Amino acid sequence: MSGANRQIRLAGRPVGDVRPEDWEHVTAPADAPGEGRFAGRTRFISLDPAMRGWLDDRPSYLPPVGLGEVMRAGSVIEVTESNHPDFKPGDHVVGTFGVQEYVVSDGRGAVKVDPSLAPLPTYLGALGMPGMTAYFGLLDVGALREGETVVVSGAAGAVGTLVGQIAKVKGCRVIGIAGGPEKCAMLTEELGFDAAVDYRTEDVRAALRTHAPDGIDVYFDNVGGDILDAALARLAMHARVVVCGAISQYNNETAVQGPSNYLSLLVRRARMEGFVVFDYAPRFREAAKELAGWIAAGRIKVKEHVVRGTVDDFPDTLQMLFRGENVGKLVLELA
Amino acid sequence: MSGANRQIRLAGRPVGDVRPEDWEHVTAPADAPGEGRFAGRTRFISLDPAMRGWLDDRPSYLPPVGLGEVMRAGSVIEVTESNHPDFKPGDHVVGTFGVQEYVVSDGRGAVKVDPSLAPLPTYLGALGMPGMTAYFGLLDVGALREGETVVVSGAAGAVGTLVGQIAKVKGCRVIGIAGGPEKCAMLTEELGFDAAVDYRTEDVRAALRTHAPDGIDVYFDNVGGDILDAALARLAMHARVVVCGAISQYNNETAVQGPSNYLSLLVRRARMEGFVVFDYAPRFREAAKELAGWIAAGRIKVKEHVVRGTVDDFPDTLQMLFRGENVGKLVLELA
Repeated sequence: MSGANRQIRLAGRPVGDVRPEDWEHVTAPADAPGEGRFAGRTRFISLDPAMRGWLDDRPSYLPPVGLGEVMRAGSVIEVTESNHPDFKPGDHVVGTFGVQEYVVSDGRGAVKVDPSLAPLPTYLGALGMPGMTAYFGLLDVGALREGETVVVSGAAGAVGTLVGQIAKVKGCRVIGIAGGPEKCAMLTEELGFDAAVDYRTEDVRAALRTHAPDGIDVYFDNVGGDILDAALARLAMHARVVVCGAISQYNNETAVQGPSNYLSLLVRRARMEGFVVFDYAPRFREAAKELAGWIAAGRIKVKEHVVRGTVDDFPDTLQMLFRGENVGKLVLELA
Repeated sequence: MSGANRQIRLAGRPVGDVRPEDWEHVTAPADAPGEGRFAGRTRFISLDPAMRGWLDDRPSYLPPVGLGEVMRAGSVIEVTESNHPDFKPGDHVVGTFGVQEYVVSDGRGAVKVDPSLAPLPTYLGALGMPGMTAYFGLLDVGALREGETVVVSGAAGAVGTLVGQIAKVKGCRVIGIAGGPEKCAMLTEELGFDAAVDYRTEDVRAALRTHAPDGIDVYFDNVGGDILDAALARLAMHARVVVCGAISQYNNETAVQGPSNYLSLLVRRARMEGFVVFDYAPRFREAAKELAGWIAAGRIKVKEHVVRGTVDDFPDTLQMLFRGENVGKLVLELA
């Protein structure tokens, strides 16, 4: 391979919302792969709420993306040229390859995937990090038991759609919190949620009182802010609050809004626990196998939101997450 | 027994600080005990931060004290007259007998104690609810392990002094947060804490960086507010935050200040968990025995703050807790 490699690099550190000028659109040379390496063309790029955190220069579970570096992203590539024994042209490979058209890799962290078993975007969604996040967050951190009441926020998102459906597989009552009547209808009519709450028009606290009359056993939080407080006010005894994310707070210019109702952890003998999905890497294969089985059996419906474009569309596409414009897993498919 | 029984009853529901007019000072008749009952004279009344929560009319782990009711309080009484087979005149008994000079009881929830084994106030402190709270909160909820780093706020209080000393018995590094140089000196010089932080004059976050360079494994929180946030910013991986109380927030007229740094639970794969000591009642005897052993061996020093007065001094004495004027367990001894 030779030619041009269009890339999106981090140009500045955003304060609050990410601005167009925080990105640099660069055309770099597309180098041929050296010994022990392979090259590939990017097919699908994952867009994740966690990306906002990677832009801040502060200690977290991963180092921040450096200024001038290609933006970190998971993607599916198709191998075009290889000097690596394990990868051959035509293979599809998932890895953290960044927001760029062409990739050269030594294979570390790269996993071959089979497009005949699942559509390629699914390897970035239900069978990728969002799937692992939902699975381990709900079952391991949340310690979900059959018959419990589960509430998930960001319910129409990549992780939320899976959390709710896994909980249904496990015989639980599931209430999703999402923004807008279309998303809410999708949750109950298509994905089998028992109830959905539209946080844009409903009083979430009152709605949870209605839909979870005996309290919430597991609250899976993707959003933080007022919705977290509403859920804390409705915890059942010995409830578990799974802290997965806080998308309502990621673009704050001021401090994160802490949960004012956290003392209900005391009254309800409850716990709030965070996790990072990468810690479960040794068990990813086991989880993916179980999820694939549920998908094959029609017990879990995969929701993907595919935007077609070029890497130059990455910044605008990323903003869709923070405006709540995606349904299910958001991916950018390179034309 | 016949005569007068001076009582403190709840007259109004405070908003923010408790005001003198929220209490009614009443002289009721001191009735003789009927069949199956005993009567006693109150010797020591317990004063606890949790009392503030009992005054609010909202659902909690106990029903609120009703308007016009004798204020709920733990106390030690001396039996003066008995028609109950298990209690005889001269016995000392601990129970939730309320803020009053004379008590009539059917014996439910009453426990005989032996003043030759421990001073009577100790049955309201290290061998009473504060002892149970420290013991189960630290060892069970906090799941403390030898060699870990423990931080406790409200460290000079009834629970805090015990949490730190139990952690030392368990071979841990202990940092106490308290208000004022005298309390801090007491923690390190008398009680064996490894370090003390004076939140009134020090930058707590910077001090924790110094004293807990490898992070906090267990943070036992009695205060909430900014100090909780400072501790959350210093959590070690897989840390446990024990939510015992939030005295800094109990007199708020506005919403409780939620912990802005709660997302470090995610980064640090940590958990924050609440508990109510009464849940451990079946194990109180076991804990009291172990605590009594440590006290007898000189491994735990009991700190008690005895105010001598009458039941009419209860309202003023209670305020000492919220002004941080007590060291160790605060009790009112009736003259």
